[in-house]
Amino acid sequence: MEKFIPVVVIKELSETDTILTALKMNGINCAEITFRTACAEEAIKYAVKNYPDMTIGAGTVINAQQCHKALDAGATFIVSPGLSNEVAKVCQANNVPYYPGCVTPTEIMAALDLGITTVKFFPANVYGGLKALKALSAPFPQVKFIPTGGVDRNNIDEFLAFDKIAAIGGSFFVAESLEKMKEKN
Amino acid sequence: MEKFIPVVVIKELSETDTILTALKMNGINCAEITFRTACAEEAIKYAVKNYPDMTIGAGTVINAQQCHKALDAGATFIVSPGLSNEVAKVCQANNVPYYPGCVTPTEIMAALDLGITTVKFFPANVYGGLKALKALSAPFPQVKFIPTGGVDRNNIDEFLAFDKIAAIGGSFFVAESLEKMKEKN
Amino acid sequence: MEKFIPVVVIKELSETDTILTALKMNGINCAEITFRTACAEEAIKYAVKNYPDMTIGAGTVINAQQCHKALDAGATFIVSPGLSNEVAKVCQANNVPYYPGCVTPTEIMAALDLGITTVKFFPANVYGGLKALKALSAPFPQVKFIPTGGVDRNNIDEFLAFDKIAAIGGSFFVAESLEKMKEKN
Repeated sequence: MEKFIPVVVIKELSETDTILTALKMNGINCAEITFRTACAEEAIKYAVKNYPDMTIGAGTVINAQQCHKALDAGATFIVSPGLSNEVAKVCQANNVPYYPGCVTPTEIMAALDLGITTVKFFPANVYGGLKALKALSAPFPQVKFIPTGGVDRNNIDEFLAFDKIAAIGGSFFVAESLEKMKEKN
Repeated sequence: MEKFIPVVVIKELSETDTILTALKMNGINCAEITFRTACAEEAIKYAVKNYPDMTIGAGTVINAQQCHKALDAGATFIVSPGLSNEVAKVCQANNVPYYPGCVTPTEIMAALDLGITTVKFFPANVYGGLKALKALSAPFPQVKFIPTGGVDRNNIDEFLAFDKIAAIGGSFFVAESLEKMKEKN
Repeated sequence: MEKFIPVVVIKELSETDTILTALKMNGINCAEITFRTACAEEAIKYAVKNYPDMTIGAGTVINAQQCHKALDAGATFIVSPGLSNEVAKVCQANNVPYYPGCVTPTEIMAALDLGITTVKFFPANVYGGLKALKALSAPFPQVKFIPTGGVDRNNIDEFLAFDKIAAIGGSFFVAESLEKMKEKN
């Protein structure tokens, strides 16, 4: 799995090229395109077709219907802010990795029951940050985390130094990449 | 829906008049009478009958049995500290709004699955306060929150300035209203 | 129930005597032996047989299979980092107390629905500590808590002074007891 998972919100389909190009120029070959906007499905289709060297997933997938749309569009991984049993089942049936947001031990146990061992931890800064992940890793040594929300350039290295971090998620990757591209031009 | 939802704990039925009168004098026309005391059901009945211009709901409803009692007593909205599927179903069948407490993305997704888009956020100060609500609003733009617990006169304006706030809950409205009434007399 | 519940991680079966002896010398007659290590089951069996005056339970029990193993080994109470309906049912069928970790109102309501009124609160320091327990006790006066994680000698008295504390959990009891035993020898 990719180490950095940019949370991408595409408001107009035409932004897709700009954002994905900026991410690539910044060395990031992954995009979690979120179902927060009307054009998400179309943007995923477009990205999968035109950026075959990038790992394109769908984010903010909150129900089975959206999950089916995301998979039909070609998403190769699915992320939810929380854990949905329905979405987990659709992903499992389609053999696509699902990274649900889990912030309490009960939610992590529910994920483990579904065979999921890599979970998103969102909003990371609100629910205790790295300190929480270290505490949760004691009873759950088998679990890897994708902290998202409040992780940025100032603290990313601290997170990456912890061996239970599977990847880092965040919209700051997008802002940073667009900024760098702008500076170059 | 009312903007202020006082959490009312009635220990003796005789307190009902004092508290509801104080709330009204303070410009608050709503009361969430909590099922934490033996006389809750009776207090709701009394309030519904004698304060027809106030919106009377039931709080701390933690199971279907309490929910049926609350509805029979005339409660026009139901609040729970957390989310109960059972209570949600009873409310839906009776066409009465249900505001369950949801503090994690998983719990918010479970509420959305039940068709609920306004949730209580309790205890607000413990689970990250306004910062948490802003973070949760990114993936859940369709959700409105009722922060309760730790919200008071010192920080209520900050909460109200955020457009995802449906209402503010709290027992401090009762204490404040009683204090003001005392000063007047 | 015992007031102090040491979270015991046994890496090698041979450590069992040292740790349990140290706990006893420190006045602690209880051990929650965690299913985080391969020898947990064997260690519980050994402890139950050789320390009949101690209350031996199983911790980090995250599914029904582990729960059955723990009960077969002789564990007299079961602890989970979160709440598992499956584990709760197995415990109920075997008439053994189950202390699931619950940190949100929704999780506490799910425990109450299962007839459980004493819950673990883990990681206590991450999810608001004593302040959170006091806030949660307002709508849940019937619930007793076992705060675990971040409770230590520096703050244990503050927790114990709160009347909704059923017991204190933590691995620090083990470290402390081993340290004291070492000093004596």
